[in-house]
Amino acid sequence: MALKIAERSRVPPFIVMDVMRAANERAASGQDVLHLEVGQPSTGAPQGVLDAVRRSLPNDPMGYTDALGLPALRRRIAEHYREAYGMVLDPERVVVCTGSSGAFVLAFLSAFEPGDRVALASPGYPAYRNILRALGVEPIPILAGPETNFQPTPKLLDGVSGPLQGLIVASPSNPTGMMVSRTELEALVAYCDERGIRLVSDEIYHGITFGKRAETALALTEDAIVVNSFSKYYSMTGWRIGWMVAPSSMLRPLECLTQNLYISPPTVSQYAGIAAFDCREELDAHVARYARNRALLLERLPEAGFRDMSAAEGAFYLYVDVAHLTNDSEAYCRQLLAETGVAVTPGTDFDPERGHRSLRISFAGATAVMAEAARRLIARNG
Amino acid sequence: MALKIAERSRVPPFIVMDVMRAANERAASGQDVLHLEVGQPSTGAPQGVLDAVRRSLPNDPMGYTDALGLPALRRRIAEHYREAYGMVLDPERVVVCTGSSGAFVLAFLSAFEPGDRVALASPGYPAYRNILRALGVEPIPILAGPETNFQPTPKLLDGVSGPLQGLIVASPSNPTGMMVSRTELEALVAYCDERGIRLVSDEIYHGITFGKRAETALALTEDAIVVNSFSKYYSMTGWRIGWMVAPSSMLRPLECLTQNLYISPPTVSQYAGIAAFDCREELDAHVARYARNRALLLERLPEAGFRDMSAAEGAFYLYVDVAHLTNDSEAYCRQLLAETGVAVTPGTDFDPERGHRSLRISFAGATAVMAEAARRLIARNG
Repeated sequence: MALKIAERSRVPPFIVMDVMRAANERAASGQDVLHLEVGQPSTGAPQGVLDAVRRSLPNDPMGYTDALGLPALRRRIAEHYREAYGMVLDPERVVVCTGSSGAFVLAFLSAFEPGDRVALASPGYPAYRNILRALGVEPIPILAGPETNFQPTPKLLDGVSGPLQGLIVASPSNPTGMMVSRTELEALVAYCDERGIRLVSDEIYHGITFGKRAETALALTEDAIVVNSFSKYYSMTGWRIGWMVAPSSMLRPLECLTQNLYISPPTVSQYAGIAAFDCREELDAHVARYARNRALLLERLPEAGFRDMSAAEGAFYLYVDVAHLTNDSEAYCRQLLAETGVAVTPGTDFDPERGHRSLRISFAGATAVMAEAARRLIARNG
Repeated sequence: MALKIAERSRVPPFIVMDVMRAANERAASGQDVLHLEVGQPSTGAPQGVLDAVRRSLPNDPMGYTDALGLPALRRRIAEHYREAYGMVLDPERVVVCTGSSGAFVLAFLSAFEPGDRVALASPGYPAYRNILRALGVEPIPILAGPETNFQPTPKLLDGVSGPLQGLIVASPSNPTGMMVSRTELEALVAYCDERGIRLVSDEIYHGITFGKRAETALALTEDAIVVNSFSKYYSMTGWRIGWMVAPSSMLRPLECLTQNLYISPPTVSQYAGIAAFDCREELDAHVARYARNRALLLERLPEAGFRDMSAAEGAFYLYVDVAHLTNDSEAYCRQLLAETGVAVTPGTDFDPERGHRSLRISFAGATAVMAEAARRLIARNG
């Protein structure tokens, strides 16, 4: 008898991963690839992390930890909020997670019922809506553009028909790098507070900003779920370690959920995370490189016909409007890869409705790679 | 405005984790604890794994991998099926997961719709039913006892009123260590096949058996989802790495789901996993120790009044009927811990209906710990 595959598992592919695979296949066939498609630093964990891991390997059997994470890591994360934002945070509110991915699954399961409606900016990180859908929650796209820094605003939210149970805000955002100011975040917090909307604040790109400092929702409300990660500023993607700061009332449900869904986050990675906070010098050098890469691309890409771009106040992405070059960004990305070896991501991942005319360009790699990519794109399009 | 917490996140706590915490608090206060409650080996990863990790750390930035895992690990796992079961497996069917926990989340999301009904033996691993419930699937407990090796059978399944969409079989099982024979597994596969029931075969304790060899459902059907892990035989719990062998028709949905829910499994742990298959000598020595521990407890525990026990054909647990000693196994476990320092797990975790009169005793620790625990339990109860 034929067996079914559940409808809810038919989430769209995360196109950036498919682009990465096409690029890797090209590389495996001996052709060169310039990786401007990847959503991760080209660098590994800082040396201090590797040293700490090597030291801890023989001294700990690396068994399960407390479901919410090693107490020493939870304390260190709380201390980070004092260092980075000047605020006091009870370590009990810190939930160590298996990457920010794990944090989103836990946050959505614990905050939203099947059938709930959660608003989020489009363009935005595609896994938000795909995880929400897999868990039976309806993502409500807020079509945002450069006039609001690609961010949701109370006015845009007022345009939604029907009630909302949640709002996801990402600042700096993937794919645009754009941020919400403190005033704008305050307005969104107040909007949510008045309407009983649970705010989920994705702060995984904090630490990678080019001018103004990113604001944490934690400073404004205790009701928000704040998600962060060691994958971006800390350059530790494959370690799959992140954290959530949750309202006190959610901690016991979150603990029970994570016990069952994850048991505990990877232990080696938790030791790595403790060490990561003491590696600022190496990590800030990465941010300085991202700043150089950003400046280089903002200067050169217009010569390749990429004139209409987000200014990337943070993160390591430029979101480019290529409506004058193509009406099919996926095909355009395949062409660029085949003709120039430059891999970039089509906007359809981030904005299903309008992304056919946008690209995301990641500048997380080496500056020489950015320069060569710009040269090739200019040679093709200029 | 007060914000809700989703009903579906109110899963019961995974009591073994709470018992571990109580035991750790006792240990932190300076009192000794004999850990017979933990569901994990007392040993760490084998030396060959630690060496491989140390070698790989400086040579790989440990970024994201393919969502389905490093190709080298998927090939090595497929090769393991040749070595261990004498069967050919296409590496494409191997999905590397963030522990077996990740495999269950992916399996349940992709195989079952909200409202579906999935049968599973009680007593059984509590996370099955808690994950199912969090994902909107109804767990249907099959009350199993020593007369069927605590395993489901076609006859027991016939006693379920209403249709089933899934069946979970765990052999060897947690908490009883009991197994299904090849004939019994064939009967269950045929039962599922005739009725369009998706079989999920939990094989995470394979490799830890005391006499007869564990059978893989893979040898009998291509429709089953087979779950395995590096946490038990390979002694690598905190590395959070496991795998699933899935029907070919499920691979693309599984890939898209895991891209969104996990991005990829921990990279360091994937390198560790590749090395683990070449560490059989050290790992088989652990199994020999489990066998000694099992023999010791089966011999001595009856003197402590624990006479009615599962014979533990595999895994590292004894499931003990203590109905003549208590009607509240949770209180009884607290008493045992307070009076003797011996930590064991109440059966309520594994069998909500009948577990108030059962205990699970883990013999994954050192033999000296087992001997001392038996001595103290006999001194108290004997």
